[in-house]
Amino acid sequence: MSNEETIRERIADAVRETKETAPLTGSITNYVTVDFVANAQLAAGGSAAMVYLPDEGTALAETSSAFYINVGTLLPSHEETVCVTATMLHELGRPWVLDPVGIGLGASRSRMLDHMRVCKPSVIRCNASEAIALARAWGLDAFDGAGAVKGVDSTESVHAARAAAVSLARHTKGAVAVSGACDLITDGALVAFSKGGSKLMGKVTGFGCALGGVAACYAACGDPFTAALAASNAFNQAASRAACIADAPASFKVSFLDALYKLSPEDVASNPFNLEEA
Amino acid sequence: MSNEETIRERIADAVRETKETAPLTGSITNYVTVDFVANAQLAAGGSAAMVYLPDEGTALAETSSAFYINVGTLLPSHEETVCVTATMLHELGRPWVLDPVGIGLGASRSRMLDHMRVCKPSVIRCNASEAIALARAWGLDAFDGAGAVKGVDSTESVHAARAAAVSLARHTKGAVAVSGACDLITDGALVAFSKGGSKLMGKVTGFGCALGGVAACYAACGDPFTAALAASNAFNQAASRAACIADAPASFKVSFLDALYKLSPEDVASNPFNLEEA
Amino acid sequence: MSNEETIRERIADAVRETKETAPLTGSITNYVTVDFVANAQLAAGGSAAMVYLPDEGTALAETSSAFYINVGTLLPSHEETVCVTATMLHELGRPWVLDPVGIGLGASRSRMLDHMRVCKPSVIRCNASEAIALARAWGLDAFDGAGAVKGVDSTESVHAARAAAVSLARHTKGAVAVSGACDLITDGALVAFSKGGSKLMGKVTGFGCALGGVAACYAACGDPFTAALAASNAFNQAASRAACIADAPASFKVSFLDALYKLSPEDVASNPFNLEEA
Repeated sequence: MSNEETIRERIADAVRETKETAPLTGSITNYVTVDFVANAQLAAGGSAAMVYLPDEGTALAETSSAFYINVGTLLPSHEETVCVTATMLHELGRPWVLDPVGIGLGASRSRMLDHMRVCKPSVIRCNASEAIALARAWGLDAFDGAGAVKGVDSTESVHAARAAAVSLARHTKGAVAVSGACDLITDGALVAFSKGGSKLMGKVTGFGCALGGVAACYAACGDPFTAALAASNAFNQAASRAACIADAPASFKVSFLDALYKLSPEDVASNPFNLEEA
Repeated sequence: MSNEETIRERIADAVRETKETAPLTGSITNYVTVDFVANAQLAAGGSAAMVYLPDEGTALAETSSAFYINVGTLLPSHEETVCVTATMLHELGRPWVLDPVGIGLGASRSRMLDHMRVCKPSVIRCNASEAIALARAWGLDAFDGAGAVKGVDSTESVHAARAAAVSLARHTKGAVAVSGACDLITDGALVAFSKGGSKLMGKVTGFGCALGGVAACYAACGDPFTAALAASNAFNQAASRAACIADAPASFKVSFLDALYKLSPEDVASNPFNLEEA
Repeated sequence: MSNEETIRERIADAVRETKETAPLTGSITNYVTVDFVANAQLAAGGSAAMVYLPDEGTALAETSSAFYINVGTLLPSHEETVCVTATMLHELGRPWVLDPVGIGLGASRSRMLDHMRVCKPSVIRCNASEAIALARAWGLDAFDGAGAVKGVDSTESVHAARAAAVSLARHTKGAVAVSGACDLITDGALVAFSKGGSKLMGKVTGFGCALGGVAACYAACGDPFTAALAASNAFNQAASRAACIADAPASFKVSFLDALYKLSPEDVASNPFNLEEA
């Protein structure tokens, strides 16, 4: 069986197991898109719970099968909560996904993201500008370009972030998923490009956050690279289907979540992607 | 007129008065589903306002006709806000609904829920596992089973929580609404089972929270048992209608809110339910 | 060219430039409707980012083209964040929109709104009761009526708030947009009444907040009066179109955001409005 066939089988297995076992997936995530994250996780078959207090972060980290941490819309107490929870997730060896949204904005976010360097998230979900900024912040030398972050949006294509993503994945011994016109997913050895999606994804807030939240659900049932690629495949496939039905953002979001819910494990596994050596 | 006919008449009256008077219903509620709570309250005819600061909680408690307190997604300042607001609601004799979501997770939530024991919410809205856990936390002896809470989801059926719900209602001299495949509503003397709904309710975050928020609106215009049963009836009826239109979560949520808005007082009153002695 | 024709041309220009340049528009806004604000800003062509920490507010104020501050759902740290951010926006001469939602509720909100008096928001977006209350709080003498605020809803028509709105606009040397059955927009010299919309806007939470957020995007590309009138025109036009498709709140909200996204600059400019001397 080829490398690609093996990967497609693993994707189908992770998606199927998520639907069958509804793994509890805790989150600390921003207030803008928290509803979208939870609904995407439920649509994918997971069980969602969100917390913000330090002792609730660690308690939920213990009882969850996987976890999602997104550093958007911080409040003063978030820094302690995020840091103690990430430390515990690392100590427990629990799979978890980091979304370094807004990197570069504010001292608290910078301190938290510095702390994440040793907590080694299983999956980093970001856009191209954020991947480059995080690799630089963590002192990983192999990256090209100097992508600027514009608010929470990327100014770079995923290809500009390829070296940064590979460096990050090698450092964490996990996976990195860079969202863009096509998504780049790497574990430091392989680079996959997942295709599909729709430009309307950029006209709705939270597609990146929701993708990270679903990747966490899948990471409860598969290795980081499989989980990250499965989430990108699922989002690209569901968005392609939604774009056949809807031509404007709000109805597109509704159709997307409906499509995500209806995707079979085989639908997710068979979404087009390319594989390359890193 | 039979007991059931009287109850159906009271339900219709509470729903009609809510639509006609738009009672101001304050809330302290979690960040995940706050938008759904507010939109459900507006769809039911109420007027919604959400706060988080201590002095705003007590000020809003004074000016509101009813109140909704949900202990999800706590922040450090919530403990003071929730406790002083609940105390004031009790002192004012204002109808209010408690949702003990996430019971068992974290010290702050436990302290707040302990405090609620003496504040006696008019309606407790919860799932089966939460009803059992709250009855135990409050030292009420008459409950069966030992339902575990999985994140924010129940692992028990409403029938397993019947004794716990009855004990809670007798303690508060109010009503308890336990959400499940069918909903159990009790005032400690009667037990009603409201029917209908859809499995898709479990695939969208916040149906329980939104139900609690709407129960608070109805509690401004009816006694606790009537309000709780009216809210369950309304949700089951609207969800049944939505499930005829939509077969996936996001379009189902849209259709549900539309149907909730369109329900007449008679639609809510006539939704199927059984009555039993407690 | 008449005054009205000039204004319509400016509106079209601001809407077109927003769509073409996607100005970064930062926000500090309430948790209930933050998702609606962000999605409305994206639908209008802007780029959205939300923050809550003091140093992130000032950093985002510096990098944003315009800003939106809404004082709903306050937490303890909001007071510092809102005040330092508003001060910086004023010092930078950056266009920004204030929504004084909930005015009169709580000491923290009152202190913040007092502080705003000298920070002079470019646009104040509010309902009639809030305009009257803010003019009074700022000691502006020329207002009539004594509109009470009911939670977050108005008890007055926009006409009752006309003098208050004109006083506020003359004080800030900016614009004031008062939402109602028809919207009143003034810069202290002219008063425009933008028409259209739908009663269903009152059955969905956040239309006022979303309007303020979109006005901020347009204020990055036009003067305050143009931006405020463009936002009211866009909302009234999109809501009129949505009301032709949907007859209940949730589907109406979806259709509204879709219609907002599809509006051309000319659609926004040509929405019916009247002009009068102040």
